[in-house]
Amino acid sequence: MNPDITRERENATFNVEKLTHILDGGIEKTKRRREIESLVISDPDFQSEDLNFLSRSERYDAAVKKSAQMILKLREHGISDPEEIYCYKSVFRGHHHEALGLHFVMFLPTLYTQCNKEQFKKWVPLAESLKIIGTYAQTEMGHGTHLRGLETTATYDPATQEFVLNSPTITSIKWWPGGLGKTSNHAIVLAQLHTQGKCHGLHAFIVPLRSMNTHIPLPGVVVGDIGPKFGFDEVDNGYLKLENVRIPRDYMLMKYAKVEADGTYVKPPSAKLTYGTMVFIRSMIVREAGRALAKSCTIAIRYSSVRHQSEIRPGEPEPQIMDYQTQQYKLFPLLATAYAYTFVGQYMNQVYHRITGDINQGDFSELPELHALSAGLKAFTTWTASEGIEVCRMACGGHGYSRCSALPDIYVNFVPTCTYEGENTVMMLQTARFLIKSYRQASAGHQLSGIVSYLNESEGRLQPQSVSTRPTVVNINDLASLVETYKLRAAKLVELAAKSIQLELQKRVSQEDAWNNSAIDLVRASDAHCHYVVVKLFAAKLGEIGDTGIHSVLSTLALLYALQGIQQHSGDFLQTGLLSVPQLSQVSQRLKELLAQLRPNAVALVDAFDYCDEMLNSVLGRYDGNVYEHMFEWARRSPLNKTEVHESYHKYLKPLQAKL
Amino acid sequence: MNPDITRERENATFNVEKLTHILDGGIEKTKRRREIESLVISDPDFQSEDLNFLSRSERYDAAVKKSAQMILKLREHGISDPEEIYCYKSVFRGHHHEALGLHFVMFLPTLYTQCNKEQFKKWVPLAESLKIIGTYAQTEMGHGTHLRGLETTATYDPATQEFVLNSPTITSIKWWPGGLGKTSNHAIVLAQLHTQGKCHGLHAFIVPLRSMNTHIPLPGVVVGDIGPKFGFDEVDNGYLKLENVRIPRDYMLMKYAKVEADGTYVKPPSAKLTYGTMVFIRSMIVREAGRALAKSCTIAIRYSSVRHQSEIRPGEPEPQIMDYQTQQYKLFPLLATAYAYTFVGQYMNQVYHRITGDINQGDFSELPELHALSAGLKAFTTWTASEGIEVCRMACGGHGYSRCSALPDIYVNFVPTCTYEGENTVMMLQTARFLIKSYRQASAGHQLSGIVSYLNESEGRLQPQSVSTRPTVVNINDLASLVETYKLRAAKLVELAAKSIQLELQKRVSQEDAWNNSAIDLVRASDAHCHYVVVKLFAAKLGEIGDTGIHSVLSTLALLYALQGIQQHSGDFLQTGLLSVPQLSQVSQRLKELLAQLRPNAVALVDAFDYCDEMLNSVLGRYDGNVYEHMFEWARRSPLNKTEVHESYHKYLKPLQAKL
Repeated sequence: MNPDITRERENATFNVEKLTHILDGGIEKTKRRREIESLVISDPDFQSEDLNFLSRSERYDAAVKKSAQMILKLREHGISDPEEIYCYKSVFRGHHHEALGLHFVMFLPTLYTQCNKEQFKKWVPLAESLKIIGTYAQTEMGHGTHLRGLETTATYDPATQEFVLNSPTITSIKWWPGGLGKTSNHAIVLAQLHTQGKCHGLHAFIVPLRSMNTHIPLPGVVVGDIGPKFGFDEVDNGYLKLENVRIPRDYMLMKYAKVEADGTYVKPPSAKLTYGTMVFIRSMIVREAGRALAKSCTIAIRYSSVRHQSEIRPGEPEPQIMDYQTQQYKLFPLLATAYAYTFVGQYMNQVYHRITGDINQGDFSELPELHALSAGLKAFTTWTASEGIEVCRMACGGHGYSRCSALPDIYVNFVPTCTYEGENTVMMLQTARFLIKSYRQASAGHQLSGIVSYLNESEGRLQPQSVSTRPTVVNINDLASLVETYKLRAAKLVELAAKSIQLELQKRVSQEDAWNNSAIDLVRASDAHCHYVVVKLFAAKLGEIGDTGIHSVLSTLALLYALQGIQQHSGDFLQTGLLSVPQLSQVSQRLKELLAQLRPNAVALVDAFDYCDEMLNSVLGRYDGNVYEHMFEWARRSPLNKTEVHESYHKYLKPLQAKL
Repeated sequence: MNPDITRERENATFNVEKLTHILDGGIEKTKRRREIESLVISDPDFQSEDLNFLSRSERYDAAVKKSAQMILKLREHGISDPEEIYCYKSVFRGHHHEALGLHFVMFLPTLYTQCNKEQFKKWVPLAESLKIIGTYAQTEMGHGTHLRGLETTATYDPATQEFVLNSPTITSIKWWPGGLGKTSNHAIVLAQLHTQGKCHGLHAFIVPLRSMNTHIPLPGVVVGDIGPKFGFDEVDNGYLKLENVRIPRDYMLMKYAKVEADGTYVKPPSAKLTYGTMVFIRSMIVREAGRALAKSCTIAIRYSSVRHQSEIRPGEPEPQIMDYQTQQYKLFPLLATAYAYTFVGQYMNQVYHRITGDINQGDFSELPELHALSAGLKAFTTWTASEGIEVCRMACGGHGYSRCSALPDIYVNFVPTCTYEGENTVMMLQTARFLIKSYRQASAGHQLSGIVSYLNESEGRLQPQSVSTRPTVVNINDLASLVETYKLRAAKLVELAAKSIQLELQKRVSQEDAWNNSAIDLVRASDAHCHYVVVKLFAAKLGEIGDTGIHSVLSTLALLYALQGIQQHSGDFLQTGLLSVPQLSQVSQRLKELLAQLRPNAVALVDAFDYCDEMLNSVLGRYDGNVYEHMFEWARRSPLNKTEVHESYHKYLKPLQAKL
C-alpha cells in the first residue's frame, strides 16, 4: 500500500463503509452486490487479456465470447433479478459494452411489452433461449431523434398476407443499431406502415435477418458493420438495407395497433404508452452519468493523492498534486456532482417504479411531467458528466492519455449518451416545451402542481422590481436558501424565454419561427430548471441521512455543488437580481474554504463508491496507489514490444538509410 | 454536387478565394501551397488504406512507411523551406502524427542550436542522412512540466572521461517521448549533471540506444513502447530505462555549458536562451489550435448544410439543420474562434521572428513578456479548441461518432496539446506570475510598456467607484469599445487576484501559500488577459483588410466572437461593473441577430480555409456534400465485413445456442 494513500484514508472524518451502504440503498444490498461482484472477479473464465491490446475484430470476438459465457454463468449462479444481472454485468464489462447488449436491453423488453398473446408464446421462448438473437433497428442514416422522419416502409400485401419491407432511399438504410452488423439473426425494425393505400406511421416488425442455421444473411437483407467509431470497439453497430423482404402479417407486433388480414388498420389505444420505457431508459442513463463520473473521480483523486509534483514551498518535498488549489477546483466539484447524479438517478428510478404502478392502473397523470423532466435531466447530466470525465482525465496530466488510466475508455464509451436516446439539445427543447406550456397555464391562472409549481409564483414575485431587495435574503451558507435561489433563477429564465417568444410573435413571425428564434433562451431555461431539480434532490437526500459524520461531509459536498454552480453561472444570478456583487465575492471565498475542508475526505469519498480494481481497470486508480510499477508492467505487455525490433525497421528504415 | 451546398455557395456575399489569400498571407502563398498539396494528392505512393481499419501495429508500420517515403519525396521535389515542408507534411499526415516527428521537430533542431562546432560536424550529417534517428527524451514517468524534478542522472567519471547515465528510480524512467519505443536509435536525454560531487541541474546528452546496424537495443538500455493511448496510434511513444550506460564526455551538448576533461563544470552564459524555442513551439501550437478548429468547423458546417432533420414549420420539408438557432449557436462562435486563433497564430509567428532577430543581437528585453504571453495563449487556445472540436463533433449527431467523420481523430490527436509542452493550468499560472509582477511594478509607480501596459491604469481608474458610471460608455456594436471592455475586465481580474494574495498574506501565511490559495483567481486573471489579447488581435487584423465584402463578414465574425465571450463570462462583466444588466440583454439579442446574419456565409467561410477533401479525410465534410452514399461505401470496407459470418458465430454463439 502506498503510504500517501494510507495516510489519506486515516484522515477521513466519516465511516466509509456506512456511506457505501447509503449509496447502495442499504447494508444488505452492499453485501449482495459484493457477493455478485466476487463471483465475476474470482471466475477464471473472465481473466481475459487487456482489450486495449487487441484489434477491433479481436475485441468484438472477445466480447461475444464473454457475452456467451456470461449468459451461461448467470443461469449457473441462478441470478435473475434485473438489478443483480445489471450488477453482474457491470463488473464483467468494465467500461465497455456488451456484444449482445441490445438483445437484452431492447429486443426482449419490446417483445415482452408489445407482443400479443400468440406472438409472446412464439417469440419469447426463442429469444430467451438465444435461438433468436435480436436487436432494435430504429435509427437510419438520415434520421435519429426525429422518429417521424424515418423512411423504411412496411407495405401490407393482402394477397399473400405479408408485409413487404423496403429501404426506399440511401438515407433510409438502418444505421447504428448495436449488434446489427454481425451478431443478430433477427431485428425489431421500426417502419412506416402502409396498408390500403394509407400510411399509418411507425410500427414495429420482427424481421429475420440471417439463417438460424448458418447465420448467412437472408435474401434481400444487406447487413454489415458500420465501421470503427469513437469507442464501442467491441460492438458491431450495423447497417441494414431491406430489399423487398417479405414477412408474414403476424410478424408485426400487435399488442396495441393491428393490421387485420384484409389490411384494415386498427389504432393503438394510447400514444403515451411508450413514454414509460423512455423514462426508464433515461433514468438509467442518469444513473450511468453518476457512475461514469464516480469512476473518473475515483481514478483522478486517488492518483492526485500519490502523484507528487513541483513545489509550493521552496526547499520542501514535492507536494501531492491534490494540495494544489487548482487541482481541488477541478476535481472536488465533480466529486460533488457524481454524488448529486447518483442521488438523482436513485430518485428517478423510484419515481419510475411508483408511476409504473399508477400506469398499470390506467393513471397517466404524472407521466408528461416525468417524461419532460427525464428528457432534460438526461441531457443535463450527460453533458456535464462527459465534460467532467475529460476534466478528470486531463487532471492526471500525461498519464491520463494512456489507455492504462482507463479514462479514455470511460469517456468514449460514455459520451454517446449525449446523442443516443434523444439528442441532448432536442431533449432540452422538449423539457422547455413543457416548461413554457406550464408557464402559460400558470399565467392563465391555472394552479400547477409537481416540480413546476414554482411557476405559479411567476406573476408578481418574479418581476424585477420586487426582487431588487431580494439579494440580502439569500444565505449562501444555507442549502435550503440556495435551493430557493436556484428555483427563482429557473423561474426567471423560463419567464425570459417565454418573453422572447412573445417578442418574436410581436414581429409577426409564426409560432414555430418564434420558437426557433428563442431556442437559445429555451435551452438556457431548461438547463436552469434541471440544475434546480438536482440541487433540490441533493438537499432532500441529506434529510434522509442520520449518521452525523456522513451528514456533515455530504452537506459540504452539496454546498460545494450549489455554490460552484452559482459561480459558473454567476451572470444568471446577477442578471436576475438574485444575488449581489458582494455576495458573489463571498461565494468565491466560501468555495475556496469548502475545497480545503473537503481535502482530507477526498480519497475516502471516492472509496465509498466502492469500485473494486477489477471494475475500474485503471492503473492510475488502483486502490493501493502503487501506480508507477504497474504502469511499467502494463506497458511492457504492449504488442509492439513483442519483438525488440519492429518489422518496419527492416522494411522501411534500413532501406531509407541506404538511399540517403 | 449536392444542390443544398451549391445553393449555400451561391448565397455567399464575399469572394472566398480572396479570403483564402488573406489566410495564407498572400496570393503567391496560396498558389505555392496548392502546388505542394497537389504533389502529395497526385502521388500514387500516398494513396494508402484507411488508417481506421488497421491494427495499431499496422498503423505504426504504415506511418513509418509514409515517413520514409516522404523524406525521399521531399528531396526529390527539392522542398527544403520549413514552411513548405510543414505544408507538404500536413497533407500527408491528415489529422495524424508522423512516426519520425520528433527527429525533425526536436532532435535535429536541438543539435543545430546546442552542439559546439566539433559536435555539429560529427552529429548533424549523421542525423540529416537518417543514419541516426533521434528523439528528445525529457519527460519521465514521475515528472513532466516540472523539469527541475527530473531524476535521470549523468555522472561524470574523469577516470574514463565518460558520463554514466542512470535511471535511479522507477519514476525516473523516461516516458512518453515520441519515436522512442521502436523507431529511434539515438536520443537526446535530459539528465541531472553530476560532476566533482556536485549536481549542476539539467543538461542534454546524446545517448545511443540501438545498434546502428541491427537496431537491437544496446547494453544497459531498456527501451520499448508505452502501449496504446488516446490517439497517436501511429506513434511509438516510448519508455527508456538507463542502467549504467556510459557515453564519452563530448556526447554532452556543449555549446553553452561544458564539462572539462577533469570534470570542471563551466556555466552557460544565459538561462533565457531556451525561451526562444519554447515561444516558437507554443506559437505553432496556437496555429494548430486554429487549424484543428477550422477543420472541425468545415466538417460540421458543411454537414449541417446537407443534413435535413425534423421540422420548424409543420408541413414544410425538413430544414437543413443549420437553420436551427441552437445549431448556429454551437457552430458559428467556433467558426469565429477558428478565425481568431488563425490570426493570433500569425501574429505570434511574426513576433517570434522579429524578436529572434533582436535576440541574435543580444537584446532579450521583449522575451519575458512574449514567453509569458505564449504560455497563456497556448493554454487558452488549446482548451477552447479541444472543447470546440467536441462541440463540432456532437453537432453532427450520431455520425460524428463514426471514424469516417474524422472528428474523433481530430480530437484525440489535438487534445494532448493541453498537456504537452507545459500543462495548461501550469501555463496559465506562469502567465499569471508575469501579470502579478507587472501589476506590482505598476502599483509601485513603474511605467509598463507592451501588452500589459493597461496595468498602468490600475490605480485609480480601476477602483469600483470610478467605474460605476462606466457601463453606459460601452458600445456593444463597436469592436474597439469591446476591446477596451475586455482590457478593463483583464485589469480588474488581475487586481482581484493580486488582492486575494494580499488578503492571504494578511492572514500571515507564506508568500507561496498565499499564491496557491489564490490560484483559482490567478488562472481566471490569465484567462481574461489572453481573451483580451485575442479580441484585440482579431480587431487589429480587420484594419489590414481592404476588400469590403471580406471586411464586412470578418467584422461580423469578430463582433460575434467578442459578444459571445461576454455572454459566456457575463458574471465577470457584471461583477466588475463594466456592463449593466440591460446591456447584457442587448448582447443576447445582438448575438442572435449576428447568427442569422452569418448564416448565408457559413459554408463560404469554411470553404475559405481551403482544406481539400484529401486533407480533411472526412465523409461528413466532403466538398461536394454527397455524404450518405460515401458513408455507406466506407462502412462496407470495414474489416468486420470481409466475411459475411464472423468466426465468433461458430466459436461462441452456435455452441451457446446448443447449450440453452
